Amino acid sequence: MSAATGRLRLGVVGLGRLGKRHAENLAYRVPGASLVAACSPLEEERAWARETLPEPRLYDDYADLLADREVDAVWLVTPSSLHAQQIVDALRAGKHVFCEKPLSLDLAECERVLAEAARYPHLQATIGFMRRFDPSYKDAFDRIQAGAIGRPFLVRSQTTDKNDNDGFFVRFAATSGGIFLDCTVHDIDVARWLLGKPRAKRVFAAGAVALHEGLREFGDVDNGVAICEFEDGKLAMFYASRTQAHGNDTHSEVIGTAGALAIGHNPRANRVEIYDATGVRNECTPTFFDRFEDAFLQEARAFVAAVQGGAGASAQAGATLADALEATRIGMALRESLKSGEAVVL
Amino acid sequence: MSAATGRLRLGVVGLGRLGKRHAENLAYRVPGASLVAACSPLEEERAWARETLPEPRLYDDYADLLADREVDAVWLVTPSSLHAQQIVDALRAGKHVFCEKPLSLDLAECERVLAEAARYPHLQATIGFMRRFDPSYKDAFDRIQAGAIGRPFLVRSQTTDKNDNDGFFVRFAATSGGIFLDCTVHDIDVARWLLGKPRAKRVFAAGAVALHEGLREFGDVDNGVAICEFEDGKLAMFYASRTQAHGNDTHSEVIGTAGALAIGHNPRANRVEIYDATGVRNECTPTFFDRFEDAFLQEARAFVAAVQGGAGASAQAGATLADALEATRIGMALRESLKSGEAVVL
Amino acid sequence: MSAATGRLRLGVVGLGRLGKRHAENLAYRVPGASLVAACSPLEEERAWARETLPEPRLYDDYADLLADREVDAVWLVTPSSLHAQQIVDALRAGKHVFCEKPLSLDLAECERVLAEAARYPHLQATIGFMRRFDPSYKDAFDRIQAGAIGRPFLVRSQTTDKNDNDGFFVRFAATSGGIFLDCTVHDIDVARWLLGKPRAKRVFAAGAVALHEGLREFGDVDNGVAICEFEDGKLAMFYASRTQAHGNDTHSEVIGTAGALAIGHNPRANRVEIYDATGVRNECTPTFFDRFEDAFLQEARAFVAAVQGGAGASAQAGATLADALEATRIGMALRESLKSGEAVVL
Amino acid sequence: MSAATGRLRLGVVGLGRLGKRHAENLAYRVPGASLVAACSPLEEERAWARETLPEPRLYDDYADLLADREVDAVWLVTPSSLHAQQIVDALRAGKHVFCEKPLSLDLAECERVLAEAARYPHLQATIGFMRRFDPSYKDAFDRIQAGAIGRPFLVRSQTTDKNDNDGFFVRFAATSGGIFLDCTVHDIDVARWLLGKPRAKRVFAAGAVALHEGLREFGDVDNGVAICEFEDGKLAMFYASRTQAHGNDTHSEVIGTAGALAIGHNPRANRVEIYDATGVRNECTPTFFDRFEDAFLQEARAFVAAVQGGAGASAQAGATLADALEATRIGMALRESLKSGEAVVL
Repeated sequence: MSAATGRLRLGVVGLGRLGKRHAENLAYRVPGASLVAACSPLEEERAWARETLPEPRLYDDYADLLADREVDAVWLVTPSSLHAQQIVDALRAGKHVFCEKPLSLDLAECERVLAEAARYPHLQATIGFMRRFDPSYKDAFDRIQAGAIGRPFLVRSQTTDKNDNDGFFVRFAATSGGIFLDCTVHDIDVARWLLGKPRAKRVFAAGAVALHEGLREFGDVDNGVAICEFEDGKLAMFYASRTQAHGNDTHSEVIGTAGALAIGHNPRANRVEIYDATGVRNECTPTFFDRFEDAFLQEARAFVAAVQGGAGASAQAGATLADALEATRIGMALRESLKSGEAVVL
Repeated sequence: MSAATGRLRLGVVGLGRLGKRHAENLAYRVPGASLVAACSPLEEERAWARETLPEPRLYDDYADLLADREVDAVWLVTPSSLHAQQIVDALRAGKHVFCEKPLSLDLAECERVLAEAARYPHLQATIGFMRRFDPSYKDAFDRIQAGAIGRPFLVRSQTTDKNDNDGFFVRFAATSGGIFLDCTVHDIDVARWLLGKPRAKRVFAAGAVALHEGLREFGDVDNGVAICEFEDGKLAMFYASRTQAHGNDTHSEVIGTAGALAIGHNPRANRVEIYDATGVRNECTPTFFDRFEDAFLQEARAFVAAVQGGAGASAQAGATLADALEATRIGMALRESLKSGEAVVL
Repeated sequence: MSAATGRLRLGVVGLGRLGKRHAENLAYRVPGASLVAACSPLEEERAWARETLPEPRLYDDYADLLADREVDAVWLVTPSSLHAQQIVDALRAGKHVFCEKPLSLDLAECERVLAEAARYPHLQATIGFMRRFDPSYKDAFDRIQAGAIGRPFLVRSQTTDKNDNDGFFVRFAATSGGIFLDCTVHDIDVARWLLGKPRAKRVFAAGAVALHEGLREFGDVDNGVAICEFEDGKLAMFYASRTQAHGNDTHSEVIGTAGALAIGHNPRANRVEIYDATGVRNECTPTFFDRFEDAFLQEARAFVAAVQGGAGASAQAGATLADALEATRIGMALRESLKSGEAVVL
Repeated sequence: MSAATGRLRLGVVGLGRLGKRHAENLAYRVPGASLVAACSPLEEERAWARETLPEPRLYDDYADLLADREVDAVWLVTPSSLHAQQIVDALRAGKHVFCEKPLSLDLAECERVLAEAARYPHLQATIGFMRRFDPSYKDAFDRIQAGAIGRPFLVRSQTTDKNDNDGFFVRFAATSGGIFLDCTVHDIDVARWLLGKPRAKRVFAAGAVALHEGLREFGDVDNGVAICEFEDGKLAMFYASRTQAHGNDTHSEVIGTAGALAIGHNPRANRVEIYDATGVRNECTPTFFDRFEDAFLQEARAFVAAVQGGAGASAQAGATLADALEATRIGMALRESLKSGEAVVL
């Protein structure tokens, strides 16, 4: 932290669409944070940073940013395949690190990062499962902690995207890890988080290609369903889709012995209802980017608070590397089950 | 009642669209009732009765039906202008009488009917404000009685129809009494019923012609708004419309000192929600006929139960002639206020 | 059918809670039907019939009712273990037969009934999956047929009951067939019906005992989840529960390539919303009995129409014996998967 | 604007609860703005500013802040009775000015401010009707502009607060101007804004004291209803309440010839639904402060954008002094109607 201001000095790495949003949040909307540096190999993105951010030091090489001694923490919004090594490098350079999900699509690599991180217990290392910071998910979590639904034992959760006719994700299929590792990994984290982090025991998955035939060559599907059994008699059901007509519909339910909570059932875009010849309707959040705008901000605030060790920081903590490892482990088992048609024991 | 069966023997008068529904309900769906006679001046309607109803005696003249000694009660679904005299004639013939609203659009005539009815206290005379029998309105009424919202002091209620491009109601404007007497009269009855039958003290109304210019020559509007003050500090707000795009939207709210109830806020046609490119929507009840299908049935059952004097009959009783008079009195004051632009003291 | 009246003469068998409802519907609310006979071994139930129904002939023995030549069709609301034989007996006696679900919990027995029924193609034999006749389910079905959601490929459906502290179903566990055969069988039929009757290929199920430990000795659970893969790339997810806090929550969704439909998402009891210190809420349908009141009636009307061969009768037809066999087949595979922890190939 | 940074330099005046929120927004969340000064007569509030804001110059006297030549604009969150003179003083000092509503409760004073402001056409003067900047209200406005509901002709709008047992507003009644000037003034502005700024022609109001008897001595009520007729056949209905059980329920509807829009019908606190023995419910926004959190921020951004004259600035402009004058004019007529029981012609 800056000795002068007591503010956490951050460097953002990667300035694509999501990187830009993180950068703006860190620059202008997070008390206690200063965005002092940004890194991108693309001149276009650095130009954006130059115009938009408050005088950041700009780098085209990650190593140079890590060498900047006035950077306390790095914020990685880079391609997934780089995450693991970039986290390790950041920790070795003495920086706290926030990294967008996934940690890695390779279990051994996940474990290597955890082992390395264990050597730097004073450094914060968080994976960006932003749903935990969405005010509605947070409210549900708090209600569960307060006993509002008794003992929670079942989570149903879905990540479904509006159909993209361009099929970006088809081109992305070779490296996405498949629908369960790309989408359901969020639901896996939500389920574990809301159910008290039980260990997974057995999973089963199935899928369908509804529209995007191009996925077949990658063994992927555009709609996937799954069941996950946890060790203490807890359960989760997942649904992931790339083909919704109405928008991004991220919805979770948690069912307990004394009640249930639904988070985001109707993915309403705002508080407007339209009455016309088609009936009564609301429009929907088009993308996760719109749906979780506030979550991304809260996530950044929580990370800074966690590093600064303020009151309640631990309660607000995001997903640990261990959480990310577990989500990957379950996601890979789902992929295996989809392929084999058999239940997979973990 | 039939000495043999103990059933109430009814004769329905008027077999238009609503009359047919009442006839079928009375014939097949009301325990304790037998529809034994039907009256219509139109051969076509009598033919329908011949085919559809269980062997009714058919009349083309109301006097003949009243002379039928095996008819215990008459059910009037006739043009509004006939109601008052037909009720009087029925009572004089010793028949119980149910009559569709309105009692009359003329206050003196209303009072004449009440005076006549007072001579036949053993005969049931009910005006068809079916909303009281809708299960949701009934549920709200019961909750209020049970104290669920403390002391109710404000009702907001609306009767709004889907726009009819054919403008049937424009042609009907000369005799309908205007929007407040034709539509709002239901809301007036609802407000009085839910608020404990307070006396009206002062009203104000205003209106707009949104689409149907033809109404202007009758001093009528296709959208009307109104406020009614009652004597004990209670209030009502009304809205009536002929021009809704989405359907028949009958909605009431009652606000109390400890809570509020909304009845029918979203006029959903059924339990289906549609997710498509326009968002998430439900279709709406197209007409009052669809919305209140069950209410018409319950209303018939309650009338028969009231005549038969079963347990709880009084609690289930429909609108009395006095209720109908009061609704007309308030509706006429609203019409006067619309015309004058001034508040009208009752 | 009665030569005199052209009405279908029915005999109801079994007069428990659901039997009574069916009897009243058939007696009073189904055009073209006459309830002429009723059968129950219990004097108490026959006494109810004597008082409530329109002069039925009463039997304490099923064989006697079958011998009644003025009965055209039997309506079985008897214990599940009797269904198969009673259907066969009815067909052999030349009667049309409606039987509450399930056909049988034994596959061989199901097949035996189908074989027998094949000998009586002129007789109607229907199993009571009433959900098909619920107006909202019917509306969804019709929309799908009309292409409103493109090609449907995924159904998510649940049958969840309000928790019964008395644990009736625990005592019933020995003979219920388990949660999937008792509850999910409805969802299986819904999924097949809405997806165009695809053949099941593979299933997986898991479960939890949330509250009712007594179920463990029967290998049963009080919450079950399942996935069913069909042969043409279609999918279903099921959830069944005995332990909901808020009511009977029967909810189905069908997802297609161009949209989705949700049926009964919020199990609202009626159109009332309550505003108080707890927020804005609606109460829920307490039991399936309340939720499907109208469906039971429509089901009876459709059966009578089907026997009478009126226009559109086939479109309205309920579940066939073959449908019931398939639902049992899938339900049994789910039970097996729950027990083994492995996917079951059909 | 700062020659060095091009940022608008603001001074906030008044640091009560709402003043603090505005100050934090201006300090940290508004691109192009610098909060450089703050003014409060209370040391406690200045201490808060010292700790929370980025090195503001602090004043205990408004005149001193106006003398600060490095302040381009003042942001007034002061007691209502000071607004008019403080706006005039700011304009005379060459500062742009944003002032919380109301402009004044005195019409002559409103007009005096307008006359003075006319002398400074280069200075922005905005009254804080934040509802215009709420994303849902903004969405509705945009839809109307795009013709989605045809010609809008009726607005129904309400401002209702959760009951405050402490009765703060009773103590405040002497100076609040009464419920219509304190609460409904927002709805008046919304109605005018959504209907295209028609001129009011006639109003009628009525009210009830549901809980707070102490209001009677001030001629005030805790629940008020009103109708406003505009010159071109447009209408508005208003409801204001201090006594809601469920929360702050700010709701508006606009009805047009081809459809309608509802904004905020269910005042849901977030996206969580709770299923328990009471049914299905959502909690509500407790106060306007929670409901309009985002609107306050957007309002600040729009003001800064308007001063800086960016593209689209005028479309985003908030309420002008003329809008505020008109809202006060209508609000006062409502108060007069409440008192007299008669319609008031404007």
